Amino acid sequence: MNRTLADIIAAIQPADSGAMRRALSRQRNLTKPPGSLGRLEDVSVQLAGIFGDERPAIRGKAVIVAAADHGVVAQGVTGYPQEVTVQMVLNFLSGGAAVSVMSRRLGVRQIIVDAGVAADLPEHPELHSVRIGKGTADISKGAAMSRGEAEQCLLAGIEIAVETAQSGADLIAAGEMGIGNTTASSAITAAFTGASPQETTGAGTGRNAEELARKATIVQRALEVNSPDPSDGLDVLSKLGGFEIGVLAGVALGAASMRRALIVDGFISGAAMLIAHALCPTVRDYLIASHRSAEKGHGIVLSHLNLLPLLELDMRLGEGSGAVLAMPVVEAAASCLSEMATFGEAGVSDRDDNEVEATIGG
Amino acid sequence: MNRTLADIIAAIQPADSGAMRRALSRQRNLTKPPGSLGRLEDVSVQLAGIFGDERPAIRGKAVIVAAADHGVVAQGVTGYPQEVTVQMVLNFLSGGAAVSVMSRRLGVRQIIVDAGVAADLPEHPELHSVRIGKGTADISKGAAMSRGEAEQCLLAGIEIAVETAQSGADLIAAGEMGIGNTTASSAITAAFTGASPQETTGAGTGRNAEELARKATIVQRALEVNSPDPSDGLDVLSKLGGFEIGVLAGVALGAASMRRALIVDGFISGAAMLIAHALCPTVRDYLIASHRSAEKGHGIVLSHLNLLPLLELDMRLGEGSGAVLAMPVVEAAASCLSEMATFGEAGVSDRDDNEVEATIGG
Repeated sequence: MNRTLADIIAAIQPADSGAMRRALSRQRNLTKPPGSLGRLEDVSVQLAGIFGDERPAIRGKAVIVAAADHGVVAQGVTGYPQEVTVQMVLNFLSGGAAVSVMSRRLGVRQIIVDAGVAADLPEHPELHSVRIGKGTADISKGAAMSRGEAEQCLLAGIEIAVETAQSGADLIAAGEMGIGNTTASSAITAAFTGASPQETTGAGTGRNAEELARKATIVQRALEVNSPDPSDGLDVLSKLGGFEIGVLAGVALGAASMRRALIVDGFISGAAMLIAHALCPTVRDYLIASHRSAEKGHGIVLSHLNLLPLLELDMRLGEGSGAVLAMPVVEAAASCLSEMATFGEAGVSDRDDNEVEATIGG
Repeated sequence: MNRTLADIIAAIQPADSGAMRRALSRQRNLTKPPGSLGRLEDVSVQLAGIFGDERPAIRGKAVIVAAADHGVVAQGVTGYPQEVTVQMVLNFLSGGAAVSVMSRRLGVRQIIVDAGVAADLPEHPELHSVRIGKGTADISKGAAMSRGEAEQCLLAGIEIAVETAQSGADLIAAGEMGIGNTTASSAITAAFTGASPQETTGAGTGRNAEELARKATIVQRALEVNSPDPSDGLDVLSKLGGFEIGVLAGVALGAASMRRALIVDGFISGAAMLIAHALCPTVRDYLIASHRSAEKGHGIVLSHLNLLPLLELDMRLGEGSGAVLAMPVVEAAASCLSEMATFGEAGVSDRDDNEVEATIGG
């Protein structure tokens, strides 16, 4: 492992438990019945731990959408042709894709990354090109990429996340585009969790049961041909791909190194987090799961990372759309903790039992 | 029934089915796999029907928080003293309450309504005073208010909603504050749905099983003493209260009359919708359920109105906090339908089967 990558990973610190304790104590004194903000209270305490501040402030939000192609599409695993990857990148850049529309509406900066699209892309001010290769190799026949390329993906993602954090984003969403990448994600999920390809393989953009069965068989073959080592995140990434998944794993490491919250999107974004987590379990402290995707393997990913998603809206689009959609919920959680009045400040009568509890606890 | 109220109700039109058909057809041609935006697609089609436009635009958002007191608190049904109602109204006005913080963060105009708080309130530019009375009468001993007062509540809510719509709000959230109002809501829910007081009565802000059992007994007594007629919304409102619930029922009727979407908050807001729905079943077309509250009776309300909530975050605060939190999701749904590129516009290759389907369907 490259010294730079090892250094970055070694420098990632756990969430600040002191700030989390102070946040919990503050939550108890805010003008509301204890626990009545439900999951928002948990998220607010996590944010306090991430930012090291019991009054977490969210100034900026960004979504990093990494795109790449997958050689495994040659096996007929998807309903869309490979050219859709590059076409959708252009759609992101012109603002017509779902994640672009949502980002514009919800005040989220969109950063598009060409991690390795098969076709050439024009220069564009919003396009960040890191291009590890022109799509991965077919994982049903061998490794997706070399170990060196896998490291390049991670370092590129780290750099992008660090720049994004430095430019003012406190919440960073991880999204992706890549025809064939649910196949890679199913293989990654099976490799790390021990679940079978039948359990981790869902429809993706496919159309019918026949295609689904074929896809699970390809995932099985990818695992047999490559024998990825689940204790080695770099090995799994290099063998199963893809470039965009590696970049997003790097984005998570970079966000954690900068103490920023990483909002995980769906299944493919989640598979990238499995790789980041294998490289650095502490990264888990910085992850917030946005939604539960309708894609079958996603529940397995969430369980493995012990993440409880905020939204459950039967979405299965990817692109970071679920992560962007959850951002206002995360913002509201932070704002309530930081800006709500306490019982004392507002002159609101507390319940007698809560006063006792607050005295004991705080 | 007052002619004005009857006129308003008679003028409420169903959602525009033509706009909904055009919206469905447009959804099929947007650059994403069909159905991949899940619940957002359903919401977007509903919005098309509400606004009569297959490209729904949301310009402004407002939350109307109605507050009032409940005579039934004399029966010891809550964990907080009655003075908390007025204290929280002041907390809304100074911006320290959860709904105030969220509204500020998410760009939602906050409108506070004194529908009948027991204590006097100071003049305040953001406080809309309609004050039907100084709290309702104790429903365990008789009617909450007169039939004339119930009508006054509805007309006041209608007027506020119409003004709010005219001032630019396309999404209107309904929130409330009133110590004792879960007791009234449990009684209303039992009256309309036939569920037992044990089924509709939850903890509210109460503390233990003893208080809960006592509360269910009081709800039972309120139903026995008053015999509300579920076919007559005005009768149920006048007998069980409260003033803020009546105002919110009026807000729903007013929003529907102006073809605006009404975002329902939790249990109490939902109970108000049961009254609006009893007066005018068409109002259902304009309701969007924001979240599933942790308060026990809420599921019964949602089932009765056939509403599926967008969020499930174990919240149980009221104030309109869940409704405000769901607004960005509703906005994102509208924006995706209105602003996403179609396959043709973006030059993205569609799946072959979808092209056929689109030809047949659209």
